[in-house]
Amino acid sequence: MPFRNIAVGRTEEVTHPDNLKAALAEFISTLIFVFAGQGSGMAFNKLTDDGSTTPAGLVAAALAHAFGLFVAVSVSANISGGQVNPAVTFGAFVGGNITLLRGILYWIAQLLGSTVACLLLKFATNGMTTSAFSLSSGVGVWNAFVLEIVMTFGLVYTVYATAIDPKKSNVGIIAPIAIGFIVGANILAGGAFDGASMNPAVSFGPALVSWNWKNHWVYWAGPLIGGGIAGAVYEFVFISRTHEQLPSTDY
Amino acid sequence: MPFRNIAVGRTEEVTHPDNLKAALAEFISTLIFVFAGQGSGMAFNKLTDDGSTTPAGLVAAALAHAFGLFVAVSVSANISGGQVNPAVTFGAFVGGNITLLRGILYWIAQLLGSTVACLLLKFATNGMTTSAFSLSSGVGVWNAFVLEIVMTFGLVYTVYATAIDPKKSNVGIIAPIAIGFIVGANILAGGAFDGASMNPAVSFGPALVSWNWKNHWVYWAGPLIGGGIAGAVYEFVFISRTHEQLPSTDY
Amino acid sequence: MPFRNIAVGRTEEVTHPDNLKAALAEFISTLIFVFAGQGSGMAFNKLTDDGSTTPAGLVAAALAHAFGLFVAVSVSANISGGQVNPAVTFGAFVGGNITLLRGILYWIAQLLGSTVACLLLKFATNGMTTSAFSLSSGVGVWNAFVLEIVMTFGLVYTVYATAIDPKKSNVGIIAPIAIGFIVGANILAGGAFDGASMNPAVSFGPALVSWNWKNHWVYWAGPLIGGGIAGAVYEFVFISRTHEQLPSTDY
Amino acid sequence: MPFRNIAVGRTEEVTHPDNLKAALAEFISTLIFVFAGQGSGMAFNKLTDDGSTTPAGLVAAALAHAFGLFVAVSVSANISGGQVNPAVTFGAFVGGNITLLRGILYWIAQLLGSTVACLLLKFATNGMTTSAFSLSSGVGVWNAFVLEIVMTFGLVYTVYATAIDPKKSNVGIIAPIAIGFIVGANILAGGAFDGASMNPAVSFGPALVSWNWKNHWVYWAGPLIGGGIAGAVYEFVFISRTHEQLPSTDY
Repeated sequence: MPFRNIAVGRTEEVTHPDNLKAALAEFISTLIFVFAGQGSGMAFNKLTDDGSTTPAGLVAAALAHAFGLFVAVSVSANISGGQVNPAVTFGAFVGGNITLLRGILYWIAQLLGSTVACLLLKFATNGMTTSAFSLSSGVGVWNAFVLEIVMTFGLVYTVYATAIDPKKSNVGIIAPIAIGFIVGANILAGGAFDGASMNPAVSFGPALVSWNWKNHWVYWAGPLIGGGIAGAVYEFVFISRTHEQLPSTDY
Repeated sequence: MPFRNIAVGRTEEVTHPDNLKAALAEFISTLIFVFAGQGSGMAFNKLTDDGSTTPAGLVAAALAHAFGLFVAVSVSANISGGQVNPAVTFGAFVGGNITLLRGILYWIAQLLGSTVACLLLKFATNGMTTSAFSLSSGVGVWNAFVLEIVMTFGLVYTVYATAIDPKKSNVGIIAPIAIGFIVGANILAGGAFDGASMNPAVSFGPALVSWNWKNHWVYWAGPLIGGGIAGAVYEFVFISRTHEQLPSTDY
Repeated sequence: MPFRNIAVGRTEEVTHPDNLKAALAEFISTLIFVFAGQGSGMAFNKLTDDGSTTPAGLVAAALAHAFGLFVAVSVSANISGGQVNPAVTFGAFVGGNITLLRGILYWIAQLLGSTVACLLLKFATNGMTTSAFSLSSGVGVWNAFVLEIVMTFGLVYTVYATAIDPKKSNVGIIAPIAIGFIVGANILAGGAFDGASMNPAVSFGPALVSWNWKNHWVYWAGPLIGGGIAGAVYEFVFISRTHEQLPSTDY
Repeated sequence: MPFRNIAVGRTEEVTHPDNLKAALAEFISTLIFVFAGQGSGMAFNKLTDDGSTTPAGLVAAALAHAFGLFVAVSVSANISGGQVNPAVTFGAFVGGNITLLRGILYWIAQLLGSTVACLLLKFATNGMTTSAFSLSSGVGVWNAFVLEIVMTFGLVYTVYATAIDPKKSNVGIIAPIAIGFIVGANILAGGAFDGASMNPAVSFGPALVSWNWKNHWVYWAGPLIGGGIAGAVYEFVFISRTHEQLPSTDY
């Protein structure tokens, strides 16, 4: 049910109530997701006096993001398609599943949602820092670049296979869980190396509020490339197959 | 399927067998939920000799509440709508999805269920204290107030989007999981700061049984305001849209 | 779909292929469940050289039982009703949802499955002890008795509400997850006090293989009483309502 | 919906676009799964400077594999049947649910996917070792052999009961979750003893990339035997029953 295909992209589209409501849904979903995800990292810092991450801390971060994203996708699935991530929106755009204008509207809503979540967290924690994503010692910027590409490929491929693919069948029912849990799984792997963002909005809010832009480009370039590749591969290899098998012989 | 809309609110409604059965279902569900949630905190105290919370302890609390609430919502969804939370009931009332009288009945059942759960825990643990919710050091009462508002907004928004919204579609099948897991996600963020209640019944039972009412009002005011805002926003922005699109042209 | 009502209970019923296949399904399901659950406790002992349980260990036990039971119920749901627990079978019997003979057949299969799981674990771990359930220091036998009653009430109530109730609707789809996760939630609460069995088969196998029967009766009496109460309450309060509302007016 | 029965097995079958697409889906799914699973082990080594596994580390590994496999099965369920495991493919072959040629194609894709995942992990982590599966101290090779047989029996039995069995009904909707979570549950038990592979592809990639083949045969023989037994038992005991009940009386 998520991701209604939209072919047109006229200017007036952006101000249509449906688009504004979809953007509001993306804003609220991203806020809910980043509040839980970024908040779990701040909770770890609170409990350990900014100690270095431990396996238990990684599990906490993975669950907060997995559960939070699952919910964020669920609550906006029927309104905006439950994207909650500029890389997902870009992957949907590459495969022709969202127009450029609507995509830009979603990006703005997602970045705003993340920023407001971080501001609320800063107030609610009495001024704690919203930690920007960063590389662990021993991890170079190109390592992180590849890591973000691979992990976001997996995420956007999951979105396509479980939510966009018209052949998704019953898998569509559990799609929001799958989308949330692939992020949780990837954090358990990549979180120890570069924070495992897979989502430019998730990286943008904390960077803006703490004004820390070091290596920030990696958390945009990696996810957008990985998401774009996933969108192209899935759309043209796995979805187009149906078109071949079901030629337009309706006349 | 949860949350059958009820327009009337007559006095005899309260004593109708359906209402009493729904209230009993809310009582049992809240008992099951608080038993697991509050019990997990007491288990942590038992295992660590009242040590301060660690990331592993936070994960345990988050899972106990996520799993417990998911089940509590599931088992009462078809009887009472699976609310299990005065803030959810209030949010449903604000959006016109439950009558005042039925709502009051639910509140009584939820508070009773939480209290009985705490009494049973006190006996089963041979007299351990049921810890009332409290603020961590460095967290002010207004910080906690905002925290509870934001987190409960997310919870009740999730209830509306996945369980009440008539356009929920297949998302309704996994609604109880989403409702449980948003609470789990928020505990991983807010649990380190104010305990992350999001539910006045969850705070009431332990406070009553341990007779500790310090800052107790925050755990009522925050959730009710957050839940009320979520109910109003979702009902009037996202549900009313359908009314516009589908005018009553059945004649 | 689980729990097909069975009204007759003749002697030849037991040897009917369907009954033997159902018993085999219960045997395999209980084996899978106990292997993961009991195995996770032995893994903790292996990793910590028999250290005392920690919050991380409790999380591991809770997840192993939650995931394992969810799967065990799923794989036998359409064959035997996915009971995997003498207390669930007894609760189903009290509510009239299984015959005495078939119930006894299930009990034997469940106890055998648990025993074989423990023997396999003993061999695969090169002779480690299968730890029998026991009371933590400071927890009396009557505390544990009440704990097991309350927790098993929650479990069997969940089985009734999500799997047996004809009004379960879409909740039935996620029933095996709910049944597994209520056990996970209760272990996070009760596991620190008495091990949180809620299932006589789960306690029987380790006790037999390690030949440790101290307080073993608590792990039978508590679950059977709690499960029986849940079966009686749910069947006669919540299911009978339908009978009133839908009188036999088919003529 | 997974596992479409295929009766024929001609040579040209292998080069049919559908088969190549299914093999590509198996390749990508195995890559996603091994990336998260093996990556979580490398993350543990990073965070603890190659410390020995702890209960928190076991939970992290179990969740990474449970979430990762659930997603890997979901995204390929409608294209290739979501096998992602040579032992599952072998079990499907034993029960007559996949042809030999297609099975070999799947094996190649699965082994390649695991290898590419390990190479990507090696690069993204700046040259860390991909740890091959190994036996813990005190665990003999025959202990591990039995352990892998029992655990993989549980996994492939779950695949049959929830995904292949035509009577699976609604359980099919949550099949990918059950398949992922039985692996998570078994890792919490067996992970402390032999790593709990249950999947020759999962063991092959790390062994090849780190060129460590010690006891490698156990991680092929155990899973294939366990998976084969599960396929035979389920197909001939539980699926054939339907054939008896529904004789071919269509004329």
